[in-house]
Amino acid sequence: SIRRMLNGLQPTAIAHLLESSPPQRRVVLWELVDKDQEGEVIQELADNVRAQLLSDMDSSDLAAMTEELEADNVADILQTLPDAVIQEVLAAMSTQNRERVESILSYEEDTAGGLMDPDVITVRPDLTLDVVLRYLRRHEELPHSTYYLVVVNRKDIFLGLLPILKVLTSDPNMTVREVMDTDVTALHFSMPDKEVAKLFEQHDWVMAPVIDDEQRVLGRITIDDVVDVIREGADHSLMSMAGLEEDADTFASVAKTAPRRAIWLGINLLTAIIASSVINLFQGTIDKVVALAVLMPIVASMGGVAGSQTLTVVIRGMALGHIGRANLSWLLSREFQIGLFNGLIWAALMAGVAGWWFNDTTIAGIIAAAMVINLIFAALAGALLPIILKAMRIDPALAGGVALTTVTDVVGFSAFLGLATYFYA
Amino acid sequence: SIRRMLNGLQPTAIAHLLESSPPQRRVVLWELVDKDQEGEVIQELADNVRAQLLSDMDSSDLAAMTEELEADNVADILQTLPDAVIQEVLAAMSTQNRERVESILSYEEDTAGGLMDPDVITVRPDLTLDVVLRYLRRHEELPHSTYYLVVVNRKDIFLGLLPILKVLTSDPNMTVREVMDTDVTALHFSMPDKEVAKLFEQHDWVMAPVIDDEQRVLGRITIDDVVDVIREGADHSLMSMAGLEEDADTFASVAKTAPRRAIWLGINLLTAIIASSVINLFQGTIDKVVALAVLMPIVASMGGVAGSQTLTVVIRGMALGHIGRANLSWLLSREFQIGLFNGLIWAALMAGVAGWWFNDTTIAGIIAAAMVINLIFAALAGALLPIILKAMRIDPALAGGVALTTVTDVVGFSAFLGLATYFYA
Ligand SMILES: [Mg+2]
Ligand SMILES: [Mg+2]
Ligand SMILES: [Mg+2]
Ligand SMILES: [Mg+2]
Ligand SMILES: [Mg+2]
Ligand SMILES: [Mg+2]
Ligand SMILES: [Mg+2]
Ligand SMILES: [Mg+2]
Ligand SMILES: [Mg+2]
Ligand SMILES: [Mg+2]
Ligand SMILES: [Mg+2]
Ligand SMILES: [Mg+2]
Ligand SMILES: [Mg+2]
Repeated sequence: SIRRMLNGLQPTAIAHLLESSPPQRRVVLWELVDKDQEGEVIQELADNVRAQLLSDMDSSDLAAMTEELEADNVADILQTLPDAVIQEVLAAMSTQNRERVESILSYEEDTAGGLMDPDVITVRPDLTLDVVLRYLRRHEELPHSTYYLVVVNRKDIFLGLLPILKVLTSDPNMTVREVMDTDVTALHFSMPDKEVAKLFEQHDWVMAPVIDDEQRVLGRITIDDVVDVIREGADHSLMSMAGLEEDADTFASVAKTAPRRAIWLGINLLTAIIASSVINLFQGTIDKVVALAVLMPIVASMGGVAGSQTLTVVIRGMALGHIGRANLSWLLSREFQIGLFNGLIWAALMAGVAGWWFNDTTIAGIIAAAMVINLIFAALAGALLPIILKAMRIDPALAGGVALTTVTDVVGFSAFLGLATYFYA
Repeated sequence: SIRRMLNGLQPTAIAHLLESSPPQRRVVLWELVDKDQEGEVIQELADNVRAQLLSDMDSSDLAAMTEELEADNVADILQTLPDAVIQEVLAAMSTQNRERVESILSYEEDTAGGLMDPDVITVRPDLTLDVVLRYLRRHEELPHSTYYLVVVNRKDIFLGLLPILKVLTSDPNMTVREVMDTDVTALHFSMPDKEVAKLFEQHDWVMAPVIDDEQRVLGRITIDDVVDVIREGADHSLMSMAGLEEDADTFASVAKTAPRRAIWLGINLLTAIIASSVINLFQGTIDKVVALAVLMPIVASMGGVAGSQTLTVVIRGMALGHIGRANLSWLLSREFQIGLFNGLIWAALMAGVAGWWFNDTTIAGIIAAAMVINLIFAALAGALLPIILKAMRIDPALAGGVALTTVTDVVGFSAFLGLATYFYA
């Protein structure tokens, strides 16, 4: 009866249930899914969850499962498997399906080619709309989302797009050439998927043709798959900033999760030791004025928070394509001003607190000065680090936070303890 | 010639250029945009940038600018203006446009009603497809993205969706009733936009009808507007975690940016002072063993990083709807194990480093124990805080990080200095 309830759900709902379950319960639930639903469910799953469930299936079952799916989705599924298994599954597939899937597998996963569906309806420019309508009617069913027909010449070279809605409203005696849109963009198969997504977003596309070097039509990309790219890309910054995989399985096992997180903690430990060795230089001063040890984390912490605000704004601005050479100096100057402004406000308040707490005007002045210095450095580091890291081909979302807090810790401790050493000498 | 170049660009490209410019350059560029392009450009802009440019325009210009746009986009534009100005612009609009726009403005901005386009083509179930085709052909142009016709009865009650592609491929003598999809969902106007987006994503929709309490069709939502909701929502967690607005203007002025960031820094200052007052309790111990001051930030920092890894995974899992009561205890147990595992590894390494650095096995043992304790607390706090905050109706993405580092600082300093006080007494 659990089986009946489960299989009464839509494939997306079953997929969501699997994603929301710990690994062992997943295996149990997966056993209960009907054979003829498996393919539909597996194509809706996040990569990591999919990989877990597929790892136990043999290649003939895998081939059978993918028989009814769209070729682009089959390619997606296969790409989560080891290369040897992919070859076995392909060998077990029907010839027609194998050829379609292999054609997609030949493109990089994160490009227009990898997102592409080879199932596209093309028409010649010299046909009349009436002929096009009769041609369409001969199909039992059109490929999903066929909202544009792709117009090509005899050599399959891309000429334009014919919107289905125009076919419906125009005079049937007009030709495809007269009605088609020609100011449209076809995407080269090598275009990165993030750029494809940006174009879909900006132009409100639902479908776009994919072409090769000779402008020959290879297939089409549809909005449903682009939405998944947008979602993945949006996750990227958030997850990377905590040193996590962008499509991490919420319920991955300890064995899978711990090592990746351990690496990140190890890198952080290294930077924390660097910060501590700065403090170490000032042992003598701290020994003299122990209140410094109490207050020093405040200076570092404020720098870290102010810096990550700037960092986040800049990383997002870069992802949106807002930030370039032309406006960088403006941005730096704004961040400098904000750093100065917020530095002064909170330094003034903190001076009051520290003076009252330790009854010492010197320490009040020192913490205020150190905070202003650190917040200005934080603003500049937050704005410049992502740009420097990107130029070094290091992902700013991944490395930015660690690099930033290293700067703000080192500057914060040096400024505060350095000034203290000078004034308490 | 700059003017000609600018107006030669597509509206989306002009919008992107404006978004990528500092506020003053924006005003200069905006002056150069042709009157008849203004509406197209303004509808593509992010809310904050739009608000800046609109603030200088008078209501009759605004009304003229929106005359050619879709009603849902006009509503979006007006919603960035003060209420008094909205009324002025509405008064200056043509009656037909005013009525359409007012109907949308009556719904909450972040609901299905607010996303809705009232321009929807409805058909009766008893018509033949042939009649439907002739009816469509009578339109000069169909509303954009009319990929489904909405089937309603005499009282406008929703009955089903008729896919345009089925109209094209089915026998023209069949009736709408025979061909339409009935296992489809119509969205109630009050559904939150995030849920609308989830449904579109899961079911690969391109269009969905919106209904009222009596199931009467009010309009439709199209994928292009849903993509914008997805993008906005995805930004939300990233930006909130740094205390920033989700749709912050990358180039907002100092006057606009500084106050919001100042509040966040103020909250952080308060939590940093709390952590410092924990250290203050142990002044005597630090005075005795100054190496403690050198090492204590390491314990706090490792807890903060480990905790925000858990926090990020849980916040994202909650956003995706993966985490509920059923799997919470599994998640807590996994995070506990990861915390323990990573605590032990890095504590062992750090014990070695500290022992060698200060030539003191007691301090080595103390920092190792404190790190294990803090990493376990960090894991539990990272998993539980978002759930507690959500139950308190506080946004976990906004408050989670601050709450978490307060816990890891307090626990880290207490454990490390507390153990030291005991062993060096
Ligand atoms: Mg994928
Ligand atoms: Mg990827
Ligand atoms: Mg693919
Ligand atoms: Mg768009
Ligand atoms: Mg597809
Ligand atoms: Mg899909
Ligand atoms: Mg648009
Ligand atoms: Mg908006
Ligand atoms: Mg719209
Ligand atoms: Mg919003
Ligand atoms: Mg709206
Ligand atoms: Mg989908
Ligand atoms: Mg729109």
